[in-house]
Amino acid sequence: MALGIGDDCAVFRPRGKREELVFTTDMLIEDVHFRRETHTPAQVGHKALARGLSDVAAMGAEPRFCLLSAAFPEWADDRWKDRFFDGLLALARETGTELAGGDLSHAAVMTCDIVVCGAAKAGSALRRSGARSGDGIYVSGMLGGSALGLATKKGAAWKRHLRPEPRLALGRYLRGRASAAMDLSDGLSLDLNRLCIASKVSADIAAPPIFRGASLEQALHGGEDYELLFTARPNVRIAASFGGVPLTRIGTIRRGNAGRIRLDSQPLDINGYDHFSS
Amino acid sequence: MALGIGDDCAVFRPRGKREELVFTTDMLIEDVHFRRETHTPAQVGHKALARGLSDVAAMGAEPRFCLLSAAFPEWADDRWKDRFFDGLLALARETGTELAGGDLSHAAVMTCDIVVCGAAKAGSALRRSGARSGDGIYVSGMLGGSALGLATKKGAAWKRHLRPEPRLALGRYLRGRASAAMDLSDGLSLDLNRLCIASKVSADIAAPPIFRGASLEQALHGGEDYELLFTARPNVRIAASFGGVPLTRIGTIRRGNAGRIRLDSQPLDINGYDHFSS
Repeated sequence: MALGIGDDCAVFRPRGKREELVFTTDMLIEDVHFRRETHTPAQVGHKALARGLSDVAAMGAEPRFCLLSAAFPEWADDRWKDRFFDGLLALARETGTELAGGDLSHAAVMTCDIVVCGAAKAGSALRRSGARSGDGIYVSGMLGGSALGLATKKGAAWKRHLRPEPRLALGRYLRGRASAAMDLSDGLSLDLNRLCIASKVSADIAAPPIFRGASLEQALHGGEDYELLFTARPNVRIAASFGGVPLTRIGTIRRGNAGRIRLDSQPLDINGYDHFSS
Repeated sequence: MALGIGDDCAVFRPRGKREELVFTTDMLIEDVHFRRETHTPAQVGHKALARGLSDVAAMGAEPRFCLLSAAFPEWADDRWKDRFFDGLLALARETGTELAGGDLSHAAVMTCDIVVCGAAKAGSALRRSGARSGDGIYVSGMLGGSALGLATKKGAAWKRHLRPEPRLALGRYLRGRASAAMDLSDGLSLDLNRLCIASKVSADIAAPPIFRGASLEQALHGGEDYELLFTARPNVRIAASFGGVPLTRIGTIRRGNAGRIRLDSQPLDINGYDHFSS
């Protein structure tokens, strides 16, 4: 940044016209997105940034900087706040995301909002709207782990829920390969439905790869896996895994009936978690 | 925007290296920044965006786009939300600020966070840190109106509190003229203290222009006037008014004692509203 924290605005100098900037904003609210009884402050800080980075990954962009607004309640003492920032800043450092500014306030419940700016070559950012009939449908990783963890609060699934890993390197790999992409934050059925609506297509899928111990239901409709969902033209080769994360073809894009999904040829109910309707 | 609402990220194409981008983020929380008993939903929407635009004005930049995160409680029905967006979008249209994306959620109290991106010629954005000994200190408008309005809930002062007007055109006028600038959101004493600390200088001032009916106390320490505070070199001519808003010289920047303010030669207590310490 040309100017970071401490003025009325942060100042950023774009590198020129050859790159486009992507922006995403995500709220994280106590008792909606986390509970202080079960999440450590460092995990809350990590998750606040990870949600935004996952959106940047889904565009195939590299994170450049973030801005944080945070309102702390009275129970959040200096120690809690310090550890919250430790968690956020550790992920920021790891991913090259500069914390460039923000707004601190107070509220009855811990509330924060993170904005992440990423950059990609002009015209190269991955969108939801590029899927065409005949494209393969793929997911990264194993689905349903976060929902299983939330239900059981133990083991690898719980760790998965507490500490989502944005798929930034995978997103960059998909740039130029995928025809459409988005991150899986609200469950496969709802997110695939959104991708299909944006692309004006439908989808035929089989069961996705399921996180160990999770149910098919959790893999289809559970939120917060933060894996990537993407499509690719039939002639594009997608590796079987990337950076240790499996990439699995789960189906094929079909013409018409925008948003309709069939699982093993049967209509699939769309019932992931939708903040808009809740 | 190259891509607005509806994807994982909004996409923005910078015009090139000749301009720099400024970013600010501001939260607006029920019972902290507004009360639903006294603020109409349109006023809440207006204020959410006005706070960010005021920061962009203080940098001398033009607003380009904004992102809105909003968490609505159960009491906010569709009618309330529609009017909230009406208020926000009316100010957005008036100021050429595109609503490019956001995040909707729910919460126990109405909470929103707005990010505004503005643009200015590279190197021209006004900062807090440019004041030097001998510079004149100026404010726009009449101070204390918002604090008076909050106390009395009537008349022009109350309207002022409910509907702040970001000084965007004035900010652009000051680019190239002011040596330092910031907006008055937390009260003159605290904000001037911050400007002086950023510039490593002190300030000698006289009483500022006072909003009709307000007290000197309200003009010195009351928050949310959203006027501009700025400094200019002794040889720079500043108009007596701009767009109908008076520009008043209230004092002079002095060497040393970073942050100290003297009012009529007496030390001034710094006690504006500071979210950080509250």
